[in-house]
Amino acid sequence: MGLIVQKFGGTSVADLDRIRNVAKRVAKTFDQGNDVVVILSAMAGVTDDLIEMANKVTSSPDKRELDVLLATGEQTTAALLSMTLQSMNYPAQSMLGYQAEVVTDHTFGNARILEIGASRIKDLIKKHNIIVIAGFQGCDTQGNITTLGRGGSDTSAVAVAAAIQADICEIYTDVDGIYTADPNICKKARKIKEISYDEMLNMASLGAKVLQIRSVGFAKKYNIPLHVRSSFSEEEGTMVVNEDSGMEQLVVSGVTHNKDEARITLKKVPDQPGVAAKIFTPISEADILVDMIIQNTRAGGETDLTFTVPKSDFESALAIEKTVAEEIGAEDVFGDRNIAKVSVIGVGMKNHSGVASIMFHTLAKENINIIMISTSEIRISCIIEEKYTELAVQVLHTAFGLDEE
Amino acid sequence: MGLIVQKFGGTSVADLDRIRNVAKRVAKTFDQGNDVVVILSAMAGVTDDLIEMANKVTSSPDKRELDVLLATGEQTTAALLSMTLQSMNYPAQSMLGYQAEVVTDHTFGNARILEIGASRIKDLIKKHNIIVIAGFQGCDTQGNITTLGRGGSDTSAVAVAAAIQADICEIYTDVDGIYTADPNICKKARKIKEISYDEMLNMASLGAKVLQIRSVGFAKKYNIPLHVRSSFSEEEGTMVVNEDSGMEQLVVSGVTHNKDEARITLKKVPDQPGVAAKIFTPISEADILVDMIIQNTRAGGETDLTFTVPKSDFESALAIEKTVAEEIGAEDVFGDRNIAKVSVIGVGMKNHSGVASIMFHTLAKENINIIMISTSEIRISCIIEEKYTELAVQVLHTAFGLDEE
Repeated sequence: MGLIVQKFGGTSVADLDRIRNVAKRVAKTFDQGNDVVVILSAMAGVTDDLIEMANKVTSSPDKRELDVLLATGEQTTAALLSMTLQSMNYPAQSMLGYQAEVVTDHTFGNARILEIGASRIKDLIKKHNIIVIAGFQGCDTQGNITTLGRGGSDTSAVAVAAAIQADICEIYTDVDGIYTADPNICKKARKIKEISYDEMLNMASLGAKVLQIRSVGFAKKYNIPLHVRSSFSEEEGTMVVNEDSGMEQLVVSGVTHNKDEARITLKKVPDQPGVAAKIFTPISEADILVDMIIQNTRAGGETDLTFTVPKSDFESALAIEKTVAEEIGAEDVFGDRNIAKVSVIGVGMKNHSGVASIMFHTLAKENINIIMISTSEIRISCIIEEKYTELAVQVLHTAFGLDEE
Repeated sequence: MGLIVQKFGGTSVADLDRIRNVAKRVAKTFDQGNDVVVILSAMAGVTDDLIEMANKVTSSPDKRELDVLLATGEQTTAALLSMTLQSMNYPAQSMLGYQAEVVTDHTFGNARILEIGASRIKDLIKKHNIIVIAGFQGCDTQGNITTLGRGGSDTSAVAVAAAIQADICEIYTDVDGIYTADPNICKKARKIKEISYDEMLNMASLGAKVLQIRSVGFAKKYNIPLHVRSSFSEEEGTMVVNEDSGMEQLVVSGVTHNKDEARITLKKVPDQPGVAAKIFTPISEADILVDMIIQNTRAGGETDLTFTVPKSDFESALAIEKTVAEEIGAEDVFGDRNIAKVSVIGVGMKNHSGVASIMFHTLAKENINIIMISTSEIRISCIIEEKYTELAVQVLHTAFGLDEE
């Protein structure tokens, strides 16, 4: 007996049969006496197809109009699921972004939710309806259609859950939860029963692509419990909750890896004020995201400076820095695509020393050289040679006691 | 220098190349110093595909949700055309039904437009934008998406033209105008330069499927000149205008035919009050549209009653009347699917006698038997044997002086 938000991703609504399965699951939850609000993605592949169509029109389609186009994807699945539920004699009604009053800023293609006027949703719930909301979309204060960016339906779901004060937000996807490491490279990876918002935030940004990172931030802010689970099984998935909620606190909750970055090093950079700005301003002007930055001061007023960028931006970043190096009088610029980032994550680290030393020691024992290190309160990341990625994840998983029993 | 509404049908926006052609035509009109508001249909076939998809979900999809689904078709083309115009450096902006404030009643699937809040469209025109409105769709006063029924984009176009007081509404389609008869069966058919709203209303309802009939009624009510023309050529099409606009008044403007009806006859119906109601109430309760009704009184208080229904409803109508005939004591019920209706239409008939006699004489000369007759102020229709349809259209076309010179 509760108010439950259920979000189904693109693979869960990929065709009419799967939509029927979703309808059965929603109906079951409703039959158990719950009020249910459903948030849907577009059918798997549809958003990409629409983007491809727009790119055939022009290489840089107008962003407002692209959002109008993309919004049809979720409109389609919302209508189809409502129809399916109705054909099963359940009182379902679809709502589009503007109908559900999902008000966003004006950033077409990557809009932020400003507020959700929940009164309309709540009214329909009171009349004992199942509400099916098109995810990923909202409208700005002028009534223009906006979309929330890749994975935006997760954020729609959590924002709606917050607005209507839902008891829980269930995220149905094609995996059955969050794992202690990628099961494809670490056979001993276990499904995590409970994880904190902060850990999940670090997991998401480091490569566990199950949840849109913004949705986790939203869930944390409004303290909405998330249940990440498979739409193809009845099994419990992973609960993402407040770390104070009495969950068992492991020192390390998971090991993640990311092969999507490359590094660039400027050698013997003159150690003068303003040099860092000269190095990074042209990079940000080229819309390239820099992740890690390490600076080692040498004797004699010179430093080596290393940073990482997405592999897809490696060539252009390298070209930019070759020009910069000449300007500022650095000795050399070189880069390396064959790197990977492995990270250990856990809220327990806050209260446990020694995690870093275990990590470094474990990697050293396998002769894995650490190229860069960065840390946060609940995360330690090391850049290593790409070829060692799988080995590193496996030995760290064992070292931190995460292996399946 | 004017305010022009241009409506493009499904074949005109069937793919990205055709949308590009539409964009060029719109741009040209804009470059000539006009303000342009475009109304679009969905890509040819898309609406049917969506209906088919809904019918796979359930044989009777919820009408509200079906409208949500169908509305994606026009949303797609409106976004794509706006993008295309923008990529050509024209200031275009799409508007969906609710954004253009096309307010309708609550009849999902066949909604009537109640009003169009033109202020928003006018504001954007003043800022020198090309407005691209998704046709066929509106919203009711609760903000639910509605659609206007088959061909509804024509009605959208005329209603918008009326609301913004456009100088003209151009209907771009895959034929180049209205013809004096169907050119497929009458080689001598000519394109009509000018035709009155009333004639067009009769043409549309009798089988010239170029314009949605409701749109013509709208155009007449608000006196919006329509220009029906081809989107694939620069040639002038047919103007549909007020009959007082100084147009040349032919006695007969066109000959139409319709093979979609069947007739049912009840023989020796007792001639008593209330009998007609007993015959037609169950038919209307079965949602079957009756077109013509003829009653011949016989001597002795009995009549023969004949009426026509759509061919698709023939079997069910016949079954209904067999039951009715027993109830009311009619002697027999029989039907005939092999009939056709040929009509001559012209506002000039109002002032010319003898049109009927020319029509009957012309058909008689070819030994074509007239089964039923109905007339209105500007139309005479005869039901004949279906096999004579083509011959009847051809000889009438010649008899009324419509043949191409």
